[in-house]
Amino acid sequence: MALAANMIVLAFGSAASAGAPSLAQILDSSPPGDWRAVDPAELLVMTLPKGRVVIELAPQFAPNHVMNVKRLARAGFFDGLSVVRAQDDYVAQWGDADSSHSTGEGRLRLKAEFDRRYAAGEPFVALPDPDTYAAKTGFAGDFPAARDPKTGLTWLTHCYGMVGAGRAIDPDSGGGAELYAVIGQSPRQLDRNVTLLGRVIDGMEILSSLPRGHGEMGFYQTPPERITIAAVKLASDLPPGERPGFQVLRTDSATFAAVVQNRRFRRDDWYKVPAGRIDVCNVPLPVRRTPAN
Amino acid sequence: MALAANMIVLAFGSAASAGAPSLAQILDSSPPGDWRAVDPAELLVMTLPKGRVVIELAPQFAPNHVMNVKRLARAGFFDGLSVVRAQDDYVAQWGDADSSHSTGEGRLRLKAEFDRRYAAGEPFVALPDPDTYAAKTGFAGDFPAARDPKTGLTWLTHCYGMVGAGRAIDPDSGGGAELYAVIGQSPRQLDRNVTLLGRVIDGMEILSSLPRGHGEMGFYQTPPERITIAAVKLASDLPPGERPGFQVLRTDSATFAAVVQNRRFRRDDWYKVPAGRIDVCNVPLPVRRTPAN
Repeated sequence: MALAANMIVLAFGSAASAGAPSLAQILDSSPPGDWRAVDPAELLVMTLPKGRVVIELAPQFAPNHVMNVKRLARAGFFDGLSVVRAQDDYVAQWGDADSSHSTGEGRLRLKAEFDRRYAAGEPFVALPDPDTYAAKTGFAGDFPAARDPKTGLTWLTHCYGMVGAGRAIDPDSGGGAELYAVIGQSPRQLDRNVTLLGRVIDGMEILSSLPRGHGEMGFYQTPPERITIAAVKLASDLPPGERPGFQVLRTDSATFAAVVQNRRFRRDDWYKVPAGRIDVCNVPLPVRRTPAN
Repeated sequence: MALAANMIVLAFGSAASAGAPSLAQILDSSPPGDWRAVDPAELLVMTLPKGRVVIELAPQFAPNHVMNVKRLARAGFFDGLSVVRAQDDYVAQWGDADSSHSTGEGRLRLKAEFDRRYAAGEPFVALPDPDTYAAKTGFAGDFPAARDPKTGLTWLTHCYGMVGAGRAIDPDSGGGAELYAVIGQSPRQLDRNVTLLGRVIDGMEILSSLPRGHGEMGFYQTPPERITIAAVKLASDLPPGERPGFQVLRTDSATFAAVVQNRRFRRDDWYKVPAGRIDVCNVPLPVRRTPAN
């Protein structure tokens, strides 16, 4: 049944006003060059019973963790493991709940990649608005990120859909054999405390709508509750017919600048008081399937 | 199967360090007077197939909408209606998708209660950290809220679990016959654009883990996808044996101040870089069942 025309619902800004283009209009009129084809060698495809979760990796922030996750995916390490945790308003986590990866393929422990120095002139698309947690927020490599000019450090930010590598108490105890995705309010207190290595660009709702676990920290209490991972593969290792193709809107494009302004100042008929500001984790990062041709 | 002792997972701060009490320890040692019994006359109980969603109403911010929602609940208006929308990283919404409430019990339209003036000396538990959207954030009546000293206005903030009244383009077109709850990153751009009237204090995961809708704005596309509401009742109208009893930690208590500091400066063994700051939507608002005796 379609949306009834007379429906009295909160429209949340679907109605563009006469003067201002809607978000959809901005994207529809974007030139092809404002989109970046996601490299299939940096695209992780996790197959769950309800579908595929597709993650773009961020080697520019976590080169060693990304390399190891690729190695693990190629070795079939994740295949047959499970989603073991879903904590409401926090994270979903997958990998080996029984720590069998303390030996074998998954045993590698890596030095933390929580943050890194940024180079003078290194691209960063800065947002103009204040942030609770960081001196400067914006986008680097089309991922949400932050900077502290005082220390010269930059890091990825824990926004909805960001993917990181679980670790134990030792900061150098992560490796990528256990991964998590943010499924609630951005837990920015985790920034610089755990290695973020990518972002879910498709299938996020498969993780966010998982039943929550009722053990400590949202772990599933019994093995039958866990969700089995059929496979985690790099898109570049999939047969061409199964390989998903995605494009991400370049955050250094004019189209993206228009998207940000559209979201900072909502000028459609529904909004009465435009915020005039935006949090880095509220900025949409548009993704689309690679258009035919 | 219990959490294995040797588990290599991201602990996210479950391990308290020797010197600092954990969040659980802070709450365990709280005096009874730091908790406020939620008035059952301000508690809405929505029964869905997977359990109860319990909402504390906020008459201090939306007196007319709250009064109308109570009236509708008492009239059985919501009983047999449905959750009609679940948009990922945004809201779940329930009420009458066919707008049959444009006549009958649900037809009342109310003036917007987006914000209001605050009185000199009116209690407000302010947070010390900067916020992207508002001059001042904190807690009022134990709900997350904001203030603008320049205009003398205060309003509730769209944090995870907050509940509001859907409306059409006209700001005075809401009434409470359609309600929504935030299930993702706090959509703070909605602040002052829609009437917030309460907060989910129990059963939030029932809403947040709903399958997402694939129609426009996350509406379910077919009636069978909708989740039927068995009933929405005021707790005070339920038989004593079915009436849930909850206590909320008073945000003006010493215990809450300790909770906020604990979350601003994570001093357990897992955290390496305490944020030293917190966003109003990242502050936990502890709720517990009324203790026996």
